[in-house]
Amino acid sequence: DNHEPEANDAWLPSLITETPQEGFALAITLSQKGVATTQPDAEVRKEQRPEYAQDPDSLIAISHVIATHFQTVAAANDYWRE
Amino acid sequence: DNHEPEANDAWLPSLITETPQEGFALAITLSQKGVATTQPDAEVRKEQRPEYAQDPDSLIAISHVIATHFQTVAAANDYWRE
Amino acid sequence: DNHEPEANDAWLPSLITETPQEGFALAITLSQKGVATTQPDAEVRKEQRPEYAQDPDSLIAISHVIATHFQTVAAANDYWRE
Amino acid sequence: DNHEPEANDAWLPSLITETPQEGFALAITLSQKGVATTQPDAEVRKEQRPEYAQDPDSLIAISHVIATHFQTVAAANDYWRE
Amino acid sequence: DNHEPEANDAWLPSLITETPQEGFALAITLSQKGVATTQPDAEVRKEQRPEYAQDPDSLIAISHVIATHFQTVAAANDYWRE
Amino acid sequence: DNHEPEANDAWLPSLITETPQEGFALAITLSQKGVATTQPDAEVRKEQRPEYAQDPDSLIAISHVIATHFQTVAAANDYWRE
Repeated sequence: DNHEPEANDAWLPSLITETPQEGFALAITLSQKGVATTQPDAEVRKEQRPEYAQDPDSLIAISHVIATHFQTVAAANDYWRE
Repeated sequence: DNHEPEANDAWLPSLITETPQEGFALAITLSQKGVATTQPDAEVRKEQRPEYAQDPDSLIAISHVIATHFQTVAAANDYWRE
Repeated sequence: DNHEPEANDAWLPSLITETPQEGFALAITLSQKGVATTQPDAEVRKEQRPEYAQDPDSLIAISHVIATHFQTVAAANDYWRE
Repeated sequence: DNHEPEANDAWLPSLITETPQEGFALAITLSQKGVATTQPDAEVRKEQRPEYAQDPDSLIAISHVIATHFQTVAAANDYWRE
Repeated sequence: DNHEPEANDAWLPSLITETPQEGFALAITLSQKGVATTQPDAEVRKEQRPEYAQDPDSLIAISHVIATHFQTVAAANDYWRE
Repeated sequence: DNHEPEANDAWLPSLITETPQEGFALAITLSQKGVATTQPDAEVRKEQRPEYAQDPDSLIAISHVIATHFQTVAAANDYWRE
């Protein structure tokens, strides 16, 4: 069952997080959403996982996407400066 | 029929969105427009879809483009801070 | 005839545009100029077109370059905020 | 033993560092976390290491991710200006 | 003769340019310097030219580097706003 | 002998440089440090050099990393504006 009700639901109410670590987690979520947008079938994504999780270059590329989103989230939170 | 009337029409009146989630959707649109500009034939793009939607590295690359546009849209909206 | 008189002419008088959509068009122009700089022969570029226009990964990479330039153009225009 | 207790623990309390060099070290940590998120099995990551550490293109790609995170950390620290 | 006297000379006195177009030209120079740093032999670089100038993916990658440097040069010039 | 005493020493006391050109040199250093972090064996890096120095795509990728770091260094120096 590939039903993904969250696709039409609110999943990104805010870019503001309590801590940098929660901001990093949000950057991961944003990266995954970018993939899920183009490949909405959760089953296919699950099947692809062993492929890219074993490929260092794919892992590095994913880490780059997370880094790009983390720039946005960190700026949104004014870098969690006190 | 590959007629794409929207190519000459207004499709990007503003970068301002109500919510971060709508901003993310706009980033997806901008990413797709970047592709459609170089490959304006919607039929060809449709034929390519199964190819890249099955390729984890292509999906990661698309997610990176979305992340880059989301930086722009988020900054335009001052990160939807209250 | 690959004569390209515009190479020495003014093609980028300003980064300011009326609308976001014109800004996106300028980002496309900047992306193309970046290619034309290294491969100034318009004939060669024309011959390459079918190759990359059929390759999803090339199209995604082009869309990434456009996204990078769009960041610049959007910032230059203060995101066309009213 | 792939037990990674730190996954649920606080590993990113702040983006603020004393020096640029510590900021660079943090950028490396962030890059590695981006990989560990997708491939949480430390044993697999250890096995992959000889592969990418011998591949110049992988090393360059890792350096790019670090550079992206360093932008964020440097901005957070206002570039360690005095 | 691969003597490159300019390597030790001043080639980047300023990021300020009169016009956006000169700024774009400077971005191209910066991109080329980034290559020349790693491959300082001008003869080798000249031999490589036909290879990458015929490869659309290489040309797109070069255009991306130019776009990244153009962001820097454009910001330095406050986007040549009047 | 791969002893690299500088690994534990201060190599990045500041992002501030006198000139843009010194800033560009610092961006190169940062790019190289990002590689040396993952492949700390200087001998291996030396052996890899002919491989990537002959590969235009590797050289372009290195130039991209330098460009990313140069953004950071240039911002840190307020673009060396007078």
